[in-house]
Amino acid sequence: MAAHKVVVVGGGFGGIQAVDRLRREEDVEVTLVDRRNFHLFQPLTYQVATGALSPGEIAYPLRAMFNGEANVRVLLGEVTGFDLDRREVRLAAVGEVPAPPTLTYDSLVVAGGSQYAYFGHDEWSDVAREVKSLESALAVRARILTAFEAAENETDPQVRDAELTFVVVGAGPTGVEMAGQIAEMAHDTLPGDFRAIDSRHARILLVEATDRILTTFPPKLSAKAERSLRRLGVTPMLNRTVVGVDPDGVDVQAPDGGGTERVASRTVIWAAGVQASKLGASLAELAGTEVDRAGRVTVERDLSLRGHPEVMVIGDMVRVRDASGEGAELPGVAQVAIQQGRYCARRIVDRLHGGQPEPFHYHDKGNLATIGRGRAVADLPHLRLSGLPAWGIWLGVHLWSLIGFQNRLLVLIRWVFSFATHGRGARLITRDVQEAVSED
Amino acid sequence: MAAHKVVVVGGGFGGIQAVDRLRREEDVEVTLVDRRNFHLFQPLTYQVATGALSPGEIAYPLRAMFNGEANVRVLLGEVTGFDLDRREVRLAAVGEVPAPPTLTYDSLVVAGGSQYAYFGHDEWSDVAREVKSLESALAVRARILTAFEAAENETDPQVRDAELTFVVVGAGPTGVEMAGQIAEMAHDTLPGDFRAIDSRHARILLVEATDRILTTFPPKLSAKAERSLRRLGVTPMLNRTVVGVDPDGVDVQAPDGGGTERVASRTVIWAAGVQASKLGASLAELAGTEVDRAGRVTVERDLSLRGHPEVMVIGDMVRVRDASGEGAELPGVAQVAIQQGRYCARRIVDRLHGGQPEPFHYHDKGNLATIGRGRAVADLPHLRLSGLPAWGIWLGVHLWSLIGFQNRLLVLIRWVFSFATHGRGARLITRDVQEAVSED
Repeated sequence: MAAHKVVVVGGGFGGIQAVDRLRREEDVEVTLVDRRNFHLFQPLTYQVATGALSPGEIAYPLRAMFNGEANVRVLLGEVTGFDLDRREVRLAAVGEVPAPPTLTYDSLVVAGGSQYAYFGHDEWSDVAREVKSLESALAVRARILTAFEAAENETDPQVRDAELTFVVVGAGPTGVEMAGQIAEMAHDTLPGDFRAIDSRHARILLVEATDRILTTFPPKLSAKAERSLRRLGVTPMLNRTVVGVDPDGVDVQAPDGGGTERVASRTVIWAAGVQASKLGASLAELAGTEVDRAGRVTVERDLSLRGHPEVMVIGDMVRVRDASGEGAELPGVAQVAIQQGRYCARRIVDRLHGGQPEPFHYHDKGNLATIGRGRAVADLPHLRLSGLPAWGIWLGVHLWSLIGFQNRLLVLIRWVFSFATHGRGARLITRDVQEAVSED
Repeated sequence: MAAHKVVVVGGGFGGIQAVDRLRREEDVEVTLVDRRNFHLFQPLTYQVATGALSPGEIAYPLRAMFNGEANVRVLLGEVTGFDLDRREVRLAAVGEVPAPPTLTYDSLVVAGGSQYAYFGHDEWSDVAREVKSLESALAVRARILTAFEAAENETDPQVRDAELTFVVVGAGPTGVEMAGQIAEMAHDTLPGDFRAIDSRHARILLVEATDRILTTFPPKLSAKAERSLRRLGVTPMLNRTVVGVDPDGVDVQAPDGGGTERVASRTVIWAAGVQASKLGASLAELAGTEVDRAGRVTVERDLSLRGHPEVMVIGDMVRVRDASGEGAELPGVAQVAIQQGRYCARRIVDRLHGGQPEPFHYHDKGNLATIGRGRAVADLPHLRLSGLPAWGIWLGVHLWSLIGFQNRLLVLIRWVFSFATHGRGARLITRDVQEAVSED
């Protein structure tokens, strides 16, 4: 009997779990497709953006992950579309790497993830970088460090103030963590580094459209997190929407027709508004099912695409139909993707052996967000924590979840040193290669 | 009495030693100028190019190095010229960081370093990247990894062979180390990663214009290193000069009018021909002294510029006048720069206190080069070693020389894991930010 061919699109949390659970199945052949050659531990990318960690410490080569697994193949390619009738995945070239041939599948798992959306203003992305992708995080790191360097050399006090003003848009976990890290950098790492400026005078603004930070947490924990942030030196600007972004600053507006306020800033970091991978909308169209404004396709209770039990879509690019038939949004966190990836693997094997799988059920292990050294909030099933205990849990969970013992050890060392010395070892301004080469 | 103002140009090995030795002198004020915000441990940059180490592990922020030192100031700026009569250093902006004001000095130390030269063919640098700067090393890393990925997806056997052909130009320590690392990658790290290709079939060519590799070593050690390289799978091409470089390969020529051979290759790495910082020629012109073809200015026996005892120039941008009055070239290694940097600091303090310093004397501690795991050559004052003992010394010296205990620990862990698993943790293809952003 020919092996059952599984194609997994995307090497994020969901994709690698699905592959990992299928690699020991003898009658299954898995092909993992990604346009990057590494798995990225996205929950810590923001720490790369502030020089606390190096890229290589939170990224893991996909090929190394499945090296020597006879029934797993890794392909570098960009998925451009599907033919659900012929059960085909079409692929395009990535940079200098030619397109792999079209893949055929018996089962398909699509885990394409999401990216930040700029409220329809894609041009803002040139200025307001996000910290979800590694390259963008490195660009943010260079910008933040350059801001302090530029302020040190600047003689015009207005420009200097703009260089020392940091605007983070969106007060979800990433925005809060980012604002907290910049504050710690300004107050703990950099004093003593400069002569003309005092890095502690930096203003760090956290702009949020709703009336509190960390809206996925209970209001009491939000309030505690906000107090922690303020003590660190971050100024939350609640009930404010960003209506303009340019290289010299942002325009923020109060919600009910309030006036527009101009904030002069040279560093804007975007952590608001998520847009699902385009593959979501394209699958929704092919299957004639719903897609929401953020591009998330609605999948059935077993994560399959309507009318296509052999196709599953997972992670933060889907809404899952609940018992009432409505598409429900699950939190856009790693745990959801991980559990869905494992469920997919189980379901594929079950179906192969004639079983009838149960609907997917998300087991909520809780919600964590960190604000800074010793400051975090934890909303666990039977327990709400803040401060040092929450931070301890946050550290443990994140260290444990990193792939590879080496990476765990390297990150642990970085954190121990940062904690002990307030230092940030990876504070490098690396320029784009082209720029660097043309100058030398 | 006003403090004695010292300006140090360049945060490489020589520059930071000079600053380090002056920072405790009460009557001295030091300004360190560099166009980068970090000190780079260049002897290991090639390991970044092959994914063995991460950039943050071999680079150290200059400001962190002298954080809180009351009489040391670090400035980000590009030195564009000097006024030796007015004792001024002119500075330009670096990227978005404005130019600092012109600096005045009582003593000046110029440690501008060198870069690779392309035999007058600067256009080759777009294709044949070097591994001396961090950005270029990252570009080389992406190219090498992309070559294997492209070969995996390629259907044209000729193109596939070109992708699997790696040409390293120049068989000095960096070229040898680079060729050895690519060979280890192809033979030890990557087998099992790919399905369509066998990474062990990669061809690694080391092109060298002279008749042996590692010409700064005794011939016997060169021969041993060459045997080691061949066993690793590297093919040295001796007595061959590169006469053409383009994106599809290189043209190499035998020396005495021999024919030209075409090597189809998509990955060319440049480790030949060094050009001193332009500041060397500009100082030579100002002082009316000699400059050699590689742009090295000849300095006096006390490293001062002719007629300007208050100006010293050090490192691989100078030749030092010997007892006969001729400019003599010292090896372009870290040890020379380090000893010269320390000498400068001592000389500045001596002169300040009316002393008359001895001429600079280079204390040759020996020469080390590594070829791969357990393979190295060591040419020490009373001892010549190869194989495992030489490799042990190489490891120890390089670990010990890294700045910062954290970096030593991180690199040690990387090396232990690489040794135990043949893995390379930092095998990431990161694209230029602009490209990545425009695609998402």
